[in-house]
Amino acid sequence: MEKISVAEARQAAAVGREVRIQGWIRTRRDSKGGFSFLELNDGSCQGNVQVIADATLPNYEETIKHLGAGYSVTVEGLVKASPAKEQATEIAATRVELHGTADPETYPLQKKQHSFEFLRTIAHLRPRTNTFGAIARVRNCVSRSIHNFFQEQGFLYVHTPIITSSDCEGAGAMFRVSTLDPEKPPRLPADQGGKIDYKQDFFERPTYLTVSGQLQGETAACALGKIYTFGPTFRAENSNTTRHLAEFWMVEPEMAFFDLNDNMALAEAFLKRIFSDVLKDCAEDMAFFNLRIDKTVIETLQKIIAADFVRCTYTEAVDILLASGKKFEFPVSWGCDLQAEHERYLTEEKFNAPTILYDYPRTLKPFYMRVNDDGRTVRAMDILVPKVGEIIGGSQREERLDVLEQRMQEQGLDPAHYAWYVDLRRYGTVPHAGFGLGLERVVQFVTGMTNIRDVIPFPRTPGNAEF
Amino acid sequence: MEKISVAEARQAAAVGREVRIQGWIRTRRDSKGGFSFLELNDGSCQGNVQVIADATLPNYEETIKHLGAGYSVTVEGLVKASPAKEQATEIAATRVELHGTADPETYPLQKKQHSFEFLRTIAHLRPRTNTFGAIARVRNCVSRSIHNFFQEQGFLYVHTPIITSSDCEGAGAMFRVSTLDPEKPPRLPADQGGKIDYKQDFFERPTYLTVSGQLQGETAACALGKIYTFGPTFRAENSNTTRHLAEFWMVEPEMAFFDLNDNMALAEAFLKRIFSDVLKDCAEDMAFFNLRIDKTVIETLQKIIAADFVRCTYTEAVDILLASGKKFEFPVSWGCDLQAEHERYLTEEKFNAPTILYDYPRTLKPFYMRVNDDGRTVRAMDILVPKVGEIIGGSQREERLDVLEQRMQEQGLDPAHYAWYVDLRRYGTVPHAGFGLGLERVVQFVTGMTNIRDVIPFPRTPGNAEF
Repeated sequence: MEKISVAEARQAAAVGREVRIQGWIRTRRDSKGGFSFLELNDGSCQGNVQVIADATLPNYEETIKHLGAGYSVTVEGLVKASPAKEQATEIAATRVELHGTADPETYPLQKKQHSFEFLRTIAHLRPRTNTFGAIARVRNCVSRSIHNFFQEQGFLYVHTPIITSSDCEGAGAMFRVSTLDPEKPPRLPADQGGKIDYKQDFFERPTYLTVSGQLQGETAACALGKIYTFGPTFRAENSNTTRHLAEFWMVEPEMAFFDLNDNMALAEAFLKRIFSDVLKDCAEDMAFFNLRIDKTVIETLQKIIAADFVRCTYTEAVDILLASGKKFEFPVSWGCDLQAEHERYLTEEKFNAPTILYDYPRTLKPFYMRVNDDGRTVRAMDILVPKVGEIIGGSQREERLDVLEQRMQEQGLDPAHYAWYVDLRRYGTVPHAGFGLGLERVVQFVTGMTNIRDVIPFPRTPGNAEF
Repeated sequence: MEKISVAEARQAAAVGREVRIQGWIRTRRDSKGGFSFLELNDGSCQGNVQVIADATLPNYEETIKHLGAGYSVTVEGLVKASPAKEQATEIAATRVELHGTADPETYPLQKKQHSFEFLRTIAHLRPRTNTFGAIARVRNCVSRSIHNFFQEQGFLYVHTPIITSSDCEGAGAMFRVSTLDPEKPPRLPADQGGKIDYKQDFFERPTYLTVSGQLQGETAACALGKIYTFGPTFRAENSNTTRHLAEFWMVEPEMAFFDLNDNMALAEAFLKRIFSDVLKDCAEDMAFFNLRIDKTVIETLQKIIAADFVRCTYTEAVDILLASGKKFEFPVSWGCDLQAEHERYLTEEKFNAPTILYDYPRTLKPFYMRVNDDGRTVRAMDILVPKVGEIIGGSQREERLDVLEQRMQEQGLDPAHYAWYVDLRRYGTVPHAGFGLGLERVVQFVTGMTNIRDVIPFPRTPGNAEF
């Protein structure tokens, strides 16, 4: 007898097959007609398959009539067309085997609704719920789509280091990594200052968790052409918000011989591909999110897929904001950082479309972004989407050795600390560009989940590292 | 004019197209006939494309005749069939644009051969060499194959946490993660012992870098059925060997309703798929490794793909070793850990095939492996391949609550510390199994590279965290 998933068993094509399915009971309902309906789920899809267990089964009275939410079972039987219109199939059980019970007195996932806050405290069980099962499938789909998009275009997946001794671009506060005994670390002699002797640490120097793989990714792009990273990234900022995690997954493509326009076109195609794949491959889960979480998510994604992204320079954006007659909390002037209210005005009111802002003031952006001929702006880009704001940030990189070194000095960085990065401009330098996309922001946007802690299996935030 | 990769330009199908290619010069050779041959590489494949730049080009004397190794260029021209038999095509240049030079006095990658030791010191440049470009492409291919294999079978890709407060199974020494000031950490009052006050650390407790995502992966499998993790993993052991990294990438599938036999079958199919994909998708790079690094790599992979993996219990293996008449450095008796010499005898002499050893003594294995009815052995498995030994380790997990708790106590672990893990056996427990595969070990095995530091872009080992 062939084992199939619940997803397969629910397809009309399965009718007539003798199958084995294995999963967890969602509900049991006993009919007066002398049989029970079991709703069975195995995580392969949002919906359950209905199993009809007849009282003639040998363990009906003893076992089947006592099955409850969370019990694990193996069911064998015949897939039949269902007379009900909510489902294509049902399974007439010939055997039901119980694996594990779940005491309804203590099992936290009974039929009643639970708050997302409560479910966060049982992150090890929450993927058994409809919402978190759906999030897991969408997250998987987005991740697969990311890989497929780049692989199909000949990008190489590159693993940049997690533990690093360089602090990248000063992109954020960093976690320290060490094997020294924190209670009593070895110290330099008092006449050498008495500080901690990092020569005795594992890596013989202070090390941190990476905030971005970009700089290392550039070394690969400047040899292999088109590459992407996709891995965990860290920020030690004490941000207790619905949009920040201390540990999150980031995708960072980097392309040799790409300028900012190429970068924009790639990023736009990339987002559209992810959203198309999710709508196509997770249709049932997306219908669930659209019904239960946010009634606009499907329409929002469809509109983005169909839209031409607006491209607008920072300078144009400032002019538009100044001319808007709107009263903003933060006043606008050239050189200021744009706030969420400004971004929302542009994407939601002015353009009503995803918007790529580019050519930002050089003073607002890191040293590695290419300086424009005007000397005042750099080839940075941010892609803004309705509701969440920035979803992608990127730039064309400064490929001119002298300009790069000047920019580093301007920002108080010592080029000698980045000698390997500077070498890329010293030897066979090429125009190149790249961007970064936070996986969790995308999953939040796609599902409509309001708290980022709910779109990663085990969120790490200030005070939280359970499990 | 269409931009294509060097890989495309080298195909006969490209003949007749006007194209743009962009990359780095490997060599320049000037012909007496009044033109130059440029070997151009862009990382898309092992081989170069030959560009013929005629002296009639306007920048021939000034620029083209001075192009050297590592210079970056854009070439436009017509793809023609090549008269030479080593290559299908060549490009007759109509334009050659120089982007960046590479001073031969200081550029480290001149034509001469460099040792792998030296290249490790310039890890930011080494992917520009034939060997490290090939490694990057094979590593990408293996990673893609891993994702494709699992996605095609309905596994969900799950991201387990990198920062963790549980030390898993005591699988190895761990790195500490902290934001406390190491010079002057906050301390508890002296009357409370005066130790570091981790309540003031970022996560309000001591935290570490993960050594395995297995336990968290099990929570996902026990809700979603079939899942896999693929992410960085850490060991703080002071191992200065050719087979150990402090930071490496690991794949860990975990399957509900799988027993050890299912696990073995999956692992065997998985390895064969990876090796088949590499031989098919990286044929040119594999020919390079077979020629330059290890003359047996292709044959070894082909043999494994064709082989039926031998399945042999630990107890049978011990009997075979005892009956072998071989003199081993480490004597064999039931209950001992098998050493490399024993494993090699089994895979290379006795069976001459990949071998799955299983049912190991319970005393040798972690608490989570399922105890057999004999009470002495557990449902562990190790897959051994010629030369490298263990390439996969896995087990069926203990799904019985009482046995699991007893095993934890036996190994000095407090079940209360693993309450969330134990819950999986308390609520709807299911038979389940999984295994782990180290990405770098696979890339080493596939390429024949002897030092693991050469198969990851930026290796982290004791004393090394450059870049």
